[in-house]
Amino acid sequence: MVIWENNKALEQILQSELSKLTQEEGLEPERVYEGLDQGSMVVLGNPSHPHLRPLIIGQPARVKVNANLGTSPLNNCLNTEMDKVAAALAAGTDTIMDLSTAGDLDAIRQKMLEACPLPVGTVPIYAVGKSLLDSERDVAAMKADELFDEIAKQCRQGVDFITVHCGLSKRGAELALEQNRVLGIVSRGGSMLARWMVENNQENPLLADFDRLLAIVKPYNVTLSLGDGLRPGACADAGDAAQWEEVINLGQLAKYAHTRGVQCMIEGPGHMPLNLVQGQIQGIKRLTNNAPLYVLGPLVCDSTPGYDHIAGAIGGAIGVLNGVDFLCYLTPAEHLTLPDVEDVRAGVMASRVAAHAGELALGRQRALAREARMNHARKNLDWEGMAKEAVDPELLQKRRQSHKNEEVCAMCGKFCSVKMLRDIKIN
Amino acid sequence: MVIWENNKALEQILQSELSKLTQEEGLEPERVYEGLDQGSMVVLGNPSHPHLRPLIIGQPARVKVNANLGTSPLNNCLNTEMDKVAAALAAGTDTIMDLSTAGDLDAIRQKMLEACPLPVGTVPIYAVGKSLLDSERDVAAMKADELFDEIAKQCRQGVDFITVHCGLSKRGAELALEQNRVLGIVSRGGSMLARWMVENNQENPLLADFDRLLAIVKPYNVTLSLGDGLRPGACADAGDAAQWEEVINLGQLAKYAHTRGVQCMIEGPGHMPLNLVQGQIQGIKRLTNNAPLYVLGPLVCDSTPGYDHIAGAIGGAIGVLNGVDFLCYLTPAEHLTLPDVEDVRAGVMASRVAAHAGELALGRQRALAREARMNHARKNLDWEGMAKEAVDPELLQKRRQSHKNEEVCAMCGKFCSVKMLRDIKIN
Repeated sequence: MVIWENNKALEQILQSELSKLTQEEGLEPERVYEGLDQGSMVVLGNPSHPHLRPLIIGQPARVKVNANLGTSPLNNCLNTEMDKVAAALAAGTDTIMDLSTAGDLDAIRQKMLEACPLPVGTVPIYAVGKSLLDSERDVAAMKADELFDEIAKQCRQGVDFITVHCGLSKRGAELALEQNRVLGIVSRGGSMLARWMVENNQENPLLADFDRLLAIVKPYNVTLSLGDGLRPGACADAGDAAQWEEVINLGQLAKYAHTRGVQCMIEGPGHMPLNLVQGQIQGIKRLTNNAPLYVLGPLVCDSTPGYDHIAGAIGGAIGVLNGVDFLCYLTPAEHLTLPDVEDVRAGVMASRVAAHAGELALGRQRALAREARMNHARKNLDWEGMAKEAVDPELLQKRRQSHKNEEVCAMCGKFCSVKMLRDIKIN
Repeated sequence: MVIWENNKALEQILQSELSKLTQEEGLEPERVYEGLDQGSMVVLGNPSHPHLRPLIIGQPARVKVNANLGTSPLNNCLNTEMDKVAAALAAGTDTIMDLSTAGDLDAIRQKMLEACPLPVGTVPIYAVGKSLLDSERDVAAMKADELFDEIAKQCRQGVDFITVHCGLSKRGAELALEQNRVLGIVSRGGSMLARWMVENNQENPLLADFDRLLAIVKPYNVTLSLGDGLRPGACADAGDAAQWEEVINLGQLAKYAHTRGVQCMIEGPGHMPLNLVQGQIQGIKRLTNNAPLYVLGPLVCDSTPGYDHIAGAIGGAIGVLNGVDFLCYLTPAEHLTLPDVEDVRAGVMASRVAAHAGELALGRQRALAREARMNHARKNLDWEGMAKEAVDPELLQKRRQSHKNEEVCAMCGKFCSVKMLRDIKIN
């Protein structure tokens, strides 16, 4: 049975939206059906999300960009978060994730779902962790029911995709903690589950009771973003046994979920040096049967706090060239503090640069056509035309403000190489 | 005869500075002598440059970063340029280039040489072009003597390296202009020389009279940065016949100069898609006999004005992994306007991120040791220690300001994964 026959919510979305989606992507409907059938594409969209615009993720569909938003215990203001939603949308993000860990989480999530017509993702274990930490209980005291109930509530609210660390087994956690990793487990959800498993000497409920999870999310077409709780948090930790043990699990879970009518994406690393990116991405795609790969970075060095959006764009571009489908942004605030509105903008833009560079290297028609139009405008010193094609038209206009009536730019002035050779005739 | 026996100024620098330089680089003196003898390393330094700190360029020496500064006809203020010199030094640049094209060029150059103990580079043809354009003459009216005299003057002033487009032949220029390149010739010096050659139907004087150039620069140990006047200005132009014709010439010229006791670097592209970077860099290194390669970018897409420092960092990191020795920064102002002080800082930092990511991927001990210290501090939530290892300690402290007394960061707060697992014991 093909997946859309086994997932009524998905089938309805395809019936009403597929022709619009395929037109936007420049893909034939058959290509999308094939991708969905093979599990190499997903269509994000929970019918309970008001004003939702569904989204295809999975190459050769356009590579998408996600912006992580949300409160934290040290920075907790709903209005600021709503400003960040607006900034992320204006900067051209394709999805947002609400990673709030402070304040009234249900209310924040509801507000974000109302304000954002793009798919919205969450990490439900944060809400469970918050209630434990707020009451000064150990996260090991979590009941599995609390986690499943939270997931069910968020599905009803309209969340479109959720990060669930189902592949994080007790064995994987022990490998990560035993192996003298430089930085152990750096995923927040992953570290909570690892603590829970070790302290309770029990398997991860999201893995042990995976069928229960599938039954909860399927009626809402909530896509599982299978989290990488054991992703390396330092370049020196990249590619160890713990990481691959989890990737193997993620591939098996995604395949199983697909047969049960639930769409899955795979979350990927993480910190890794530049020379490992190609092999890691290709390895993960192989082990997960080419399911859509959603990466955080990859971040190609550890010592660049304040510039991790750049280090992440380096890894992200190479990642896209090797099969990454979906880039989670890193902002200049990564490893330091909660991103502010400017960080959100910078993060989305850096990820869009990486996505475009990767797609250009893949020879995607849309990327090539954009470059051709940009270069045509550049050759004609047509600044309006350049602004139209630029990744950030607003910034281009702003930087041109002081000399907007000049034909040339303020770097070269009359030394403009384009003007220098305009009237040259070769015999 | 080894090169330092054929270049007295270089020999003197080596006698007085080599032990300090090799210590800084963590290299044996023999390794540097070998690199100099083979032409795969250069030591920048003109004894006429006051308070100069010479510099080794050429892997396995640390990859260096250059900041382009200087006035332009639309942005001409000496004080601003001096502020940019200070900003570039503070951000950790290794060299600066004065690309001024407006104002009193001799005075600006002198001020920069006095203010900057790091090697200073220039593009002497700009000064000749300026006097022609200022008096509304065609650059084709340039006399070869004017160009050589300008170079001689700048050598006497103390400039340490000069961009000279010696490899740009008349044939190469015609190839570039005939081949229907999307963006023709985008190098300013290259476009001036191309115009001069086509209009006068003569060969490039820097190529035709290369021996004259060598005789001028050698007494000052001025290193030739052999310019890539035909570098692609659009990804679609990368790797065409015109570009390679010039690279072949650059390789031959560098080899010849070396036998005459003059050190050379090779300037590299330019715009090229991500998938071409490895092949281009390896090809250029091969054709230029592994001379130090100094690249502008490579810029892996065309449609990212405002974010070209990021697109350039993507190409630069992959470039370093494949043999690039020296990164010329791109700033957020590239393709738009003259960089301001903030752009200078952002450009240097982006290039330093790229250099570090590339060196880490190459397994350089210094880069690995830095990551190890950073991760040790991170594991201990030691923010002072992290600041010490960070590429930009000042920015780290600034972003931490609002919560500097917290042990954790303001992104995760009590959700800190490091704290979550601190007390966990695995059997």
